[in-house]
Amino acid sequence: MTADPTTRRGRPGYDRESLLRVAVTVFNDRGYDGTSMEDLANRLGITKSAIYHHVSSKTELLRLAVNRALDGLFAVVAEPESTNGPAAARLEHLVRRSVAVLVAELPFVTLLLRVRGNTEVERTALARRREFDGIVTDLVRQAIADGGIRSDVDPSITARLLFGMVNSLTEWYRPDRGHDIDGIADTVVAIAFQGLRTRG
Amino acid sequence: MTADPTTRRGRPGYDRESLLRVAVTVFNDRGYDGTSMEDLANRLGITKSAIYHHVSSKTELLRLAVNRALDGLFAVVAEPESTNGPAAARLEHLVRRSVAVLVAELPFVTLLLRVRGNTEVERTALARRREFDGIVTDLVRQAIADGGIRSDVDPSITARLLFGMVNSLTEWYRPDRGHDIDGIADTVVAIAFQGLRTRG
Repeated sequence: MTADPTTRRGRPGYDRESLLRVAVTVFNDRGYDGTSMEDLANRLGITKSAIYHHVSSKTELLRLAVNRALDGLFAVVAEPESTNGPAAARLEHLVRRSVAVLVAELPFVTLLLRVRGNTEVERTALARRREFDGIVTDLVRQAIADGGIRSDVDPSITARLLFGMVNSLTEWYRPDRGHDIDGIADTVVAIAFQGLRTRG
Repeated sequence: MTADPTTRRGRPGYDRESLLRVAVTVFNDRGYDGTSMEDLANRLGITKSAIYHHVSSKTELLRLAVNRALDGLFAVVAEPESTNGPAAARLEHLVRRSVAVLVAELPFVTLLLRVRGNTEVERTALARRREFDGIVTDLVRQAIADGGIRSDVDPSITARLLFGMVNSLTEWYRPDRGHDIDGIADTVVAIAFQGLRTRG
């Protein structure tokens, strides 16, 4: 195998995407507040001004990162299977596809879930998270109303528990452990919608 | 109403328990690594040496705090309902009672779940968490083997998802919002064991 010259670069470099990926990893390791642009430059092996060539500030990196996660989740909300059909089936689709987004954008979602609202970017991200939670809660409420899911659960608590399961993947899912993503999504949906108990 | 003289103190003071509670709150707010004994003294309104009257170090505060959470969870494991009877019922008991422990020891469990293993105390806490996860995983495995729960789920992933739901309470449960604890525990168990879908 010979090196493809089109993939070789004159010097080590980052585009905005690869720089963002490294930055998010560092934020997740050290905490966003605990990471300076100096720290990022050291980890990247480039100068601070080389970073500023791509982004205006550490805040912009945070904004790009949390929006990556949020845009992925809201794209699921907009899918036809999330907007058409019985509410319980739409809820099931939303849960299943959210697992896929979480895995695809794992470091970005991990960072999003740690955001606590200390800055404008963080407050905006939290507002979008609340909007997403509200959409899930409404779907639960509709599914209860039309008889698709049990009526003895609180819609808001149910939404939080469903995404407690989904979001827990940021704590234990590791791409290198050979976990089968479709299998995990199936298990989340099986537990949440059918339950663990055998019928009999 | 007159002040009860037995509840009045000559000067503001803390016993070890109340000092620990405040320390854990500060650790959760600022991060354990980001909190110095100086920070704690300032928050408590006492001197550092007054803190050292109760505990030998910041590390000891961390050890006391995470052990509070872990001891609570392992006490549930030792309850008769967790050790006798069909595995699915024992698993259900363990999940239900873990919700109660989590709520009773909320700041301590919150801190435990953030521990990442940078020190000996943290590594020991992580090892005890893994031991607990192993107990849950074994119960799932036994419940599958004896036909109490569905056989198409992976025991380890199921254990993690179950406690993903339970542990999510540290993210959204607030004692002052009038949440009904028994109702939340019932909802966790209903979702996990019976599922959301109506039978029909």
